[in-house]
Amino acid sequence: MDISAVNALPYEDFVNIFGNVVEKCPLITAAVWTRRPFTSLNALEAAIHEFIDALPESGKEGILRCHPDLAGKHLHSGALTRESQEEQTRAGMDVLSSAEASQMTRLNEEYKGRFGFPFVICARMNDKVTILRELSERCQNERAAERARGIGEVKKICRLRLQGLVLSDATNKL
Amino acid sequence: MDISAVNALPYEDFVNIFGNVVEKCPLITAAVWTRRPFTSLNALEAAIHEFIDALPESGKEGILRCHPDLAGKHLHSGALTRESQEEQTRAGMDVLSSAEASQMTRLNEEYKGRFGFPFVICARMNDKVTILRELSERCQNERAAERARGIGEVKKICRLRLQGLVLSDATNKL
Repeated sequence: MDISAVNALPYEDFVNIFGNVVEKCPLITAAVWTRRPFTSLNALEAAIHEFIDALPESGKEGILRCHPDLAGKHLHSGALTRESQEEQTRAGMDVLSSAEASQMTRLNEEYKGRFGFPFVICARMNDKVTILRELSERCQNERAAERARGIGEVKKICRLRLQGLVLSDATNKL
Repeated sequence: MDISAVNALPYEDFVNIFGNVVEKCPLITAAVWTRRPFTSLNALEAAIHEFIDALPESGKEGILRCHPDLAGKHLHSGALTRESQEEQTRAGMDVLSSAEASQMTRLNEEYKGRFGFPFVICARMNDKVTILRELSERCQNERAAERARGIGEVKKICRLRLQGLVLSDATNKL
């Protein structure tokens, strides 16, 4: 799917295809449709970044709060979005040892208790070793730093999801 | 559920319960959790309004684009959110005559073609006669006026959903 095909999409198809590039935030995708036409995939990505960056801090925290825990209860109950399920599985979050799973649960709770939003990391750019290490280290940060760091990870996840969609067979058939 | 119980909710429960008071926009609910404690249900509602009003115009259009068509294909396929299904059914959108259904489809398409977002109206405060009349009349407006009008309707829908949740048995059990 080239960018001219993206630009030709009615908003309903655009939101249907790209609505989850930021987890559970179709509002963002739906908003940037106003900015079309995009000159490239990078321009679409930049419009998403611009929208996110212009949100108040509460809005950025809101984005983070729409993300599930890594290796949390929803991974095992099948309640994740398709994208999140794939990403967490690729990173080995579904095959943690008992000790790793306990550590992950404990650190996730510590992180959420400290910051009021979940630990977000681009799972596809990490594995269980680096995720556990990052989670442990990032629990020690300040809230503002973690909010910014989390949003940085959201943007990495968004980029990979966008690339996957634009290059996939599913959208080529449109 | 009184407001102190709402204020005591962890963000995950808060988003789980109130995440769809603005249709498919859990980002908004998740963002206003930062603003707790709320002194009343009205204060929670006001925080949601404030967040919406501070969005750029594209963001307001994004909210509207997260709404389904009234009496559209998703009503009959069962793909609506629970709240939207109930509201559209109460307003008689599922029992339109063939002529009414055709008129609704034609006007919905005209509206979306003109404005780039769907016709949004608080179905619970209307019936099929007033909905069809409003849709027909509002097709004649300017885009900025319709964006503002649509957001006004989003706020009415939000108020009724909030009231329903806070007063319902489901949340009283929390």
